[in-house]
Amino acid sequence: MADVWVELGEQSYPIYIGAGLLGRLGALVRDRLPETRRALLVTDSNVGPLYGETARAALEEAGIATSRVTVAAGEASKSLSQAFSLYTSCVRAELDRTSAIVALGGGVVGDLSGFVAATYMRGIPYVQVPTTLLAQVDSAVGGKTGVDLPQGKNLVGAFYQPSLVVADVETLKTLPRRELAAGMAEVVKYGVIRDEEFLKYVEVQVGNLLAHDPAALERVVQTSCRIKADVVAADPREKGLRAILNFGHTVGHALEAAYGYMWLHGECVAVGMVAAAIIARHSGIAEDGRLEVRLKRVLERLGLPTMLPEGVDPKDLGPYLRMDKKAKDGIIHWVMPVRAGEVIVTPKVAPDAIRWGLEALRR
Amino acid sequence: MADVWVELGEQSYPIYIGAGLLGRLGALVRDRLPETRRALLVTDSNVGPLYGETARAALEEAGIATSRVTVAAGEASKSLSQAFSLYTSCVRAELDRTSAIVALGGGVVGDLSGFVAATYMRGIPYVQVPTTLLAQVDSAVGGKTGVDLPQGKNLVGAFYQPSLVVADVETLKTLPRRELAAGMAEVVKYGVIRDEEFLKYVEVQVGNLLAHDPAALERVVQTSCRIKADVVAADPREKGLRAILNFGHTVGHALEAAYGYMWLHGECVAVGMVAAAIIARHSGIAEDGRLEVRLKRVLERLGLPTMLPEGVDPKDLGPYLRMDKKAKDGIIHWVMPVRAGEVIVTPKVAPDAIRWGLEALRR
Repeated sequence: MADVWVELGEQSYPIYIGAGLLGRLGALVRDRLPETRRALLVTDSNVGPLYGETARAALEEAGIATSRVTVAAGEASKSLSQAFSLYTSCVRAELDRTSAIVALGGGVVGDLSGFVAATYMRGIPYVQVPTTLLAQVDSAVGGKTGVDLPQGKNLVGAFYQPSLVVADVETLKTLPRRELAAGMAEVVKYGVIRDEEFLKYVEVQVGNLLAHDPAALERVVQTSCRIKADVVAADPREKGLRAILNFGHTVGHALEAAYGYMWLHGECVAVGMVAAAIIARHSGIAEDGRLEVRLKRVLERLGLPTMLPEGVDPKDLGPYLRMDKKAKDGIIHWVMPVRAGEVIVTPKVAPDAIRWGLEALRR
Repeated sequence: MADVWVELGEQSYPIYIGAGLLGRLGALVRDRLPETRRALLVTDSNVGPLYGETARAALEEAGIATSRVTVAAGEASKSLSQAFSLYTSCVRAELDRTSAIVALGGGVVGDLSGFVAATYMRGIPYVQVPTTLLAQVDSAVGGKTGVDLPQGKNLVGAFYQPSLVVADVETLKTLPRRELAAGMAEVVKYGVIRDEEFLKYVEVQVGNLLAHDPAALERVVQTSCRIKADVVAADPREKGLRAILNFGHTVGHALEAAYGYMWLHGECVAVGMVAAAIIARHSGIAEDGRLEVRLKRVLERLGLPTMLPEGVDPKDLGPYLRMDKKAKDGIIHWVMPVRAGEVIVTPKVAPDAIRWGLEALRR
């Protein structure tokens, strides 16, 4: 078992990472939250049938009376009406301020349950048990919780830290290969923004990772969480450094807004990272073209896209780029790689370089 | 103008208190939140017609584009569906993370708007403009925001601090006398728990206060906010000292649960404080019976009740007492006055003393 400690003062918490941790969930919660007598286990219709009973039994064995709620799998469950229904479940389960909400699933279950935990009785303990690679390496660190409004994603939410995160890499065995690969896009991102050695490790281990090798997955989840935790600890409220986590996401979010119905988040980020690397080269920020080559190669080996969907004109992305939520007064702050392991954040990117970068993505 | 500074580290904020401050609302917001370009002004159907336009004009004059939303007056507006509707108003008003939500009204408008501000885009600036005495001396300090569920009050919410509070004591002129008196119950509470001199001031000024004397009201609001701010600063998340603010509220909340349809919160607290004083005397915690006499006298002069409603049997309150939200593992922690200006919090109160205390309230 590998641990990462997310250092956030009074809100600090551990992430336990390993194979088979689900069976020890109750003991881990008990150690960290000794007052807990009751829990609401929230999961979804994909994950519940696979791991719901193991998780519930582990909690019960540790003396934690556990009610289980299953929401429909998919983004549509990240709604205020679903949150309302979970509040009712909290009341029915007689949760009080010492009880816990345990989120077993991917990002949707985590964001939704975290928001409910943040706001039920003005905040009760929250335990994350991420079962997708994306959730293990991304949403388990950072304290972002929330639900969608009809007008936009994550428009309602709170910054709220879990009391602990339990990432069992064995749960990744049942994850569809396409989702595993999409999660790997974020893993590659961590290497590019902060750790060239880690990028190299991923390049070497691609085969083992796609074959669910537990040791490789454990290392990848651990290093990703450590990098994200370092960045978040330095900037918990997203005022500065944390922007580097947005590498590949400027174009990635535009792609997601336009083609999210057919592409996963990680797939959009994969193309977005390639775009950023090309733009960085064209604008003289990247020291050379080596990162671009490495990025394309590792993403392709992972089975991720590195170009736009067939038939898409890069110009069509323009309006989506300008809608970027992270834009300040309409100015996009680009995360530009200088070399593997180092990026800068800058609003000063020549429009020509952006045009060239997007044009190069045309299939 | 009198200021109170609520010291909460990065979440510290000022409370401006004075007569006629509403006309300077825009300038005050501008000074404190110079980035603000847009605001959503939330008010209710009682307060809106009286002060909505003054507030909106003051904000607009300071260059803040202001949309106005009016919710129905009354507790029923503290609902998730009302919050949902306000989120939609936020989107329509094109609020971003630098925009502000301005709450103009009493506790309902403040709690509801604060919750929306705490959760829209994971938190945007929030300005409180309390227009009732209760809101000025109580809900404007403490960072409690929330809405009700069908199963109970304030079950959903967040701890979230305003960026500033603007308490214009002139708005109290249009407050029904009964509500002014009910707010005074909390003022009396502050004197009893922390400041005997202040209690004396209130005793001397009862006539002026009920006649809306601005200087007396300003002093009363300022001192109340200062006392609450001191207590909250020492215990922002309600883990210890803050319990003393619950003086009079154990029996008060029981009364409110049973008779809230006919009595205001402050009226229930008034009776609750008398009950606590009697129980403290019977259990040997109070040094003598002087506080009990003073309490009854000042509350009666304010026109507040000091006994149970006619025909009510004290035994009927038992079940409501045991439901006390602040109870830990079913044990009630009583806030017991030792003398004017000093209280202790203790679970060790003889059942007989409680019975006698409640029996003494029979009309």
